[in-house]
Amino acid sequence: MSGPSDTPLLDRIHSPADLKRLPRQQLPALSAELREEIVRVCSVGGLHLASSLGATDVIVALHYVLNSPRDRILFDVGHQAYAHKMLTGRRSQMPTVKQEGGLSGFTKVTESEHDAITVGHASTSLANALGMALARDARGEDYEVAAVIGDGSLTGGMALAALNTIGDLGPRMLIVLNDNEMSISENVGGINRFMRGLQVHPLVREGEDVGRKAVQAVSKPLADMISRAKHSTRHFFDPHSANPFAAMGLRYVGPVDGHNVTELVWLLEKLRELDGPTILHVVTRKGKGLSYAEDDPIKWHGPAKFDPATGEFTPTNAYSWSSAFGDAVTEWAAEDPDVYVITPAMREGSGLVRYSQTHPRRYLDVGIAEDVAVTAAAGMALRGIKPIVAIYSTFLQRAYDQVLHDVAIENLNVIFAVDRGGIVGADGATHNGVFDLSFLRSIPNVQIAQPRDTRELRAMLRGAAQVGGPVAIRYPRGNTDQVPTGEWPSIEWGTWERLKAGDEVVILATGRPLADALAAAEGRPGVGVVNARFVKPLDEFMLRQIAGSARAIVTVEDNTVVGGFGSAVLETLSRWGLSVPVRVLGIPDEFQEHAKPESVYARAGMDAAGIARVLDQLADRKG
Amino acid sequence: MSGPSDTPLLDRIHSPADLKRLPRQQLPALSAELREEIVRVCSVGGLHLASSLGATDVIVALHYVLNSPRDRILFDVGHQAYAHKMLTGRRSQMPTVKQEGGLSGFTKVTESEHDAITVGHASTSLANALGMALARDARGEDYEVAAVIGDGSLTGGMALAALNTIGDLGPRMLIVLNDNEMSISENVGGINRFMRGLQVHPLVREGEDVGRKAVQAVSKPLADMISRAKHSTRHFFDPHSANPFAAMGLRYVGPVDGHNVTELVWLLEKLRELDGPTILHVVTRKGKGLSYAEDDPIKWHGPAKFDPATGEFTPTNAYSWSSAFGDAVTEWAAEDPDVYVITPAMREGSGLVRYSQTHPRRYLDVGIAEDVAVTAAAGMALRGIKPIVAIYSTFLQRAYDQVLHDVAIENLNVIFAVDRGGIVGADGATHNGVFDLSFLRSIPNVQIAQPRDTRELRAMLRGAAQVGGPVAIRYPRGNTDQVPTGEWPSIEWGTWERLKAGDEVVILATGRPLADALAAAEGRPGVGVVNARFVKPLDEFMLRQIAGSARAIVTVEDNTVVGGFGSAVLETLSRWGLSVPVRVLGIPDEFQEHAKPESVYARAGMDAAGIARVLDQLADRKG
Repeated sequence: MSGPSDTPLLDRIHSPADLKRLPRQQLPALSAELREEIVRVCSVGGLHLASSLGATDVIVALHYVLNSPRDRILFDVGHQAYAHKMLTGRRSQMPTVKQEGGLSGFTKVTESEHDAITVGHASTSLANALGMALARDARGEDYEVAAVIGDGSLTGGMALAALNTIGDLGPRMLIVLNDNEMSISENVGGINRFMRGLQVHPLVREGEDVGRKAVQAVSKPLADMISRAKHSTRHFFDPHSANPFAAMGLRYVGPVDGHNVTELVWLLEKLRELDGPTILHVVTRKGKGLSYAEDDPIKWHGPAKFDPATGEFTPTNAYSWSSAFGDAVTEWAAEDPDVYVITPAMREGSGLVRYSQTHPRRYLDVGIAEDVAVTAAAGMALRGIKPIVAIYSTFLQRAYDQVLHDVAIENLNVIFAVDRGGIVGADGATHNGVFDLSFLRSIPNVQIAQPRDTRELRAMLRGAAQVGGPVAIRYPRGNTDQVPTGEWPSIEWGTWERLKAGDEVVILATGRPLADALAAAEGRPGVGVVNARFVKPLDEFMLRQIAGSARAIVTVEDNTVVGGFGSAVLETLSRWGLSVPVRVLGIPDEFQEHAKPESVYARAGMDAAGIARVLDQLADRKG
Repeated sequence: MSGPSDTPLLDRIHSPADLKRLPRQQLPALSAELREEIVRVCSVGGLHLASSLGATDVIVALHYVLNSPRDRILFDVGHQAYAHKMLTGRRSQMPTVKQEGGLSGFTKVTESEHDAITVGHASTSLANALGMALARDARGEDYEVAAVIGDGSLTGGMALAALNTIGDLGPRMLIVLNDNEMSISENVGGINRFMRGLQVHPLVREGEDVGRKAVQAVSKPLADMISRAKHSTRHFFDPHSANPFAAMGLRYVGPVDGHNVTELVWLLEKLRELDGPTILHVVTRKGKGLSYAEDDPIKWHGPAKFDPATGEFTPTNAYSWSSAFGDAVTEWAAEDPDVYVITPAMREGSGLVRYSQTHPRRYLDVGIAEDVAVTAAAGMALRGIKPIVAIYSTFLQRAYDQVLHDVAIENLNVIFAVDRGGIVGADGATHNGVFDLSFLRSIPNVQIAQPRDTRELRAMLRGAAQVGGPVAIRYPRGNTDQVPTGEWPSIEWGTWERLKAGDEVVILATGRPLADALAAAEGRPGVGVVNARFVKPLDEFMLRQIAGSARAIVTVEDNTVVGGFGSAVLETLSRWGLSVPVRVLGIPDEFQEHAKPESVYARAGMDAAGIARVLDQLADRKG
């Protein structure tokens, strides 16, 4: 695969109906064309390459056999669905994926009638599909519902719980379990034993053959790529053990080769004749067809810009907030034997590769189970450990009750390293971390801090362990400064910091927007700027001083204006009976689609120019 | 079992150490004494009778073999642990359970060193136990961690996800699966086949005997009590199917008779010698030992005041908000074939018994899986159904991300009937519904309404289906008025209602506190009262009128003052640049322990007397 090539088949396909006109023996060639084009599209960087390559054959087969949009095809997470987008009329727009005004990186119901769900978070497809199948039956309608879910997503509790109810109620639906890490290496006997247990009796004989081929197709050892998270689901798929899907009441078929598209078509046609819920277990390879991606699918999960011919790409030298966090905890854990870091399957994204290698016995990856991550931390905190839950803001949403019920009620000392606070950009509405200040702030006992740089991040991490109780330390996607190993500054807990003098109008800025506030205030002698690094509790001493002297206060946060930092200031002033005017700047009360963060912040009027406009208005009002 | 009897054994037991001094043949008698006392304690009403009776033998055996507080015994939900409280020095305080200043209805770490977790919500014990076992191993300590979890709690995704990680990592721990609905009726062969698969080889022979006895012990058919929710976990425990626990990598032992306390002791002693995680599957009967409770454990789950001798109790004639909701949807669904009601295992509590019988094909119980309930509703809404998720406020916390990610982003028309908003009373901190206004309000597109009576509830239900988008209709625990069948009033969506004229000080009260606001305002001509029945969006037209004329505004809500309704008013006035003073009344930013709601509201200064005091202050300030 090198450089652009002809796409004689793809050029003819503008909808699933066009696909169905192809003779099935041409499907493998079509898959190959799709994969080539996916590689080209992804070479601009930042797209989900490996998983989209792995799911291509399954997607071709599903669209060949089912009738979208009448039949509903749901993709869990939705980041593996590039082939689906290309087969459903969006091929020419693929270069716009994840760009402002362009296609979403996931499926989105408002983008295409072929997108069954709007998604981005994992493990939701089965409950959605269950709801659709029951809706169909209640309305006496007749269409297929098929969900494609990866083995990683199946580590999520809500996927398991949905399976349980699906097995119990037994609605007609198809679940394609896209298993891209299965290591069926040696024991063909075990597989055969497994296949004999297949509940689709007419398929047993053929199933055995299919199973044998699956083994041959995936004989390459995949040891490198088996993360702790995924490893745990191995038990589900281990042909040597009993089959939990059958135990849950689901018809189980597999494992079959997820890259043999003509056999997948044959199998899907057979399965369509059956009623009730069926799990089709397909074995695929992430990065399929691209040798360097197959060899290192984690590196190629969402690679930066690369050369499709050589697979060469230049990692940036930027130092991310995630790295700053990872370096800090790696160092800290070396000094303190009670430090323990927990991740819900985000080792790479959270900057924890080095930590996990340096402190493997104090590192826990629970899979895509944010609720388990938080409550396991509670259990640890009750037994003398200092647990740090490293989690993206958007995924902490999935453990709201665990923060409240398991951690906050007893004021346990759990530290939440909340990464990707604010607008995340290309991943869009499903991934923006703009609700955490609001939902965390309303939970009693939870403290919230936002560092402005790596020094403050380090000070807050250790400070949080000293102060006790649950503490969320929130930082944005993006880069920050690096500090020398061993440097552990301290700050006085709960205090803000005046960065620029001026007491006519005072800007209270927290986190990422602080730089914009400073820029906007520059050259305005009456305008003060405060690093409001603690969102809860507020620095009430300093706030009272400011409220006593300032003509107006401006708050700036990269969080929704509903119930966030600005509201905290309003509530406090109201409690004190003070009525100094407050202008609250932040993300408006609407979901923000994918776009560069700077673009969203500018539209929200909270970049430097927007803050300056507010300062101008306040100055006019005075004059 | 009739009336008080002697408690010769119990009188000698003030701690687990005392228990261990008993010869084991006396344990059955001790269990019987504990059960008698539990019945007496519970006869005052409102306590968890049936589950506590069912778990008594298991608790006696665990405390006999393990060494609490050194060993940690975790109870999932914690409502079955009355015997545990009585064996750990709290017997004399049992009459105070769930009363203000008294014992919690659940386990609570600050109540006793023997309570391993503070709990109230289901399915959290396994993640907590995982965290404790890993903490123990990381610190090189040596104690046992045992979790007792019911089959109902195992329908929760986080319990399943935690099992998955436990099976993968394999820390030393014991999970007692308290299965109180298993119906092992006919097929002894199936059980024997199952028992032969036991991984504890030295126990196989004895295990078979134990298994046979378990069959005899639970031979009575339990068909009546198998709710849909629990039914779904049957697949997990069906000895005819493969064993999913073993598939997950856990050692599985069972099923054994959970009421044979001496055999349980024998088995626990054996299991203690083994390393790694073990599931001990015990079969128990809810209501064990109390014939009328065994016959109808749902009725006796948390009965009102009853006569322990006869089992007679008088159901109240009060008409609850839950009943008002249940009657409304039952009627509505008869008229509209697209109405569909979803519950996460709370059919009785949510007033849905009649609905589930009248419209069984449009009724979904997903088990204790709030996330699945909400996302299944999203799937239904995408396919033409009008789904109503009937859920307690405190349990909606467990589906925060599903509301945001699966429902709100695409503005799907899902109705949330949020029951038990506000202070719930006896269940205390884990169950108070005082965060929903805050966490729902910060999610874009979500609308929030609070009816003051059944007429408004009905108007809001149908109005929500017409207006579209996600709508939360929130009402409190307690009683309301009944309206005639067929009465469907309507209200103008989004409007508030002036209930009392007066424009010097205007009280904006939403939901339950409205009655207190009216009482406080009575006889004060300058004080107006508004039924602020929409919390989002606010009635901005009326608010602007009020803000233009009133000297002060008082807001009252049975929600935390952090980010709730009062903050919405503050934010809106700040956006308008208006600075009329606002006093925000509500639940302070602290967890509220169990106490009568009136007591909590009085302490919070938001009952009629508290509101009157604020009105007095505002009147003084004027003068």
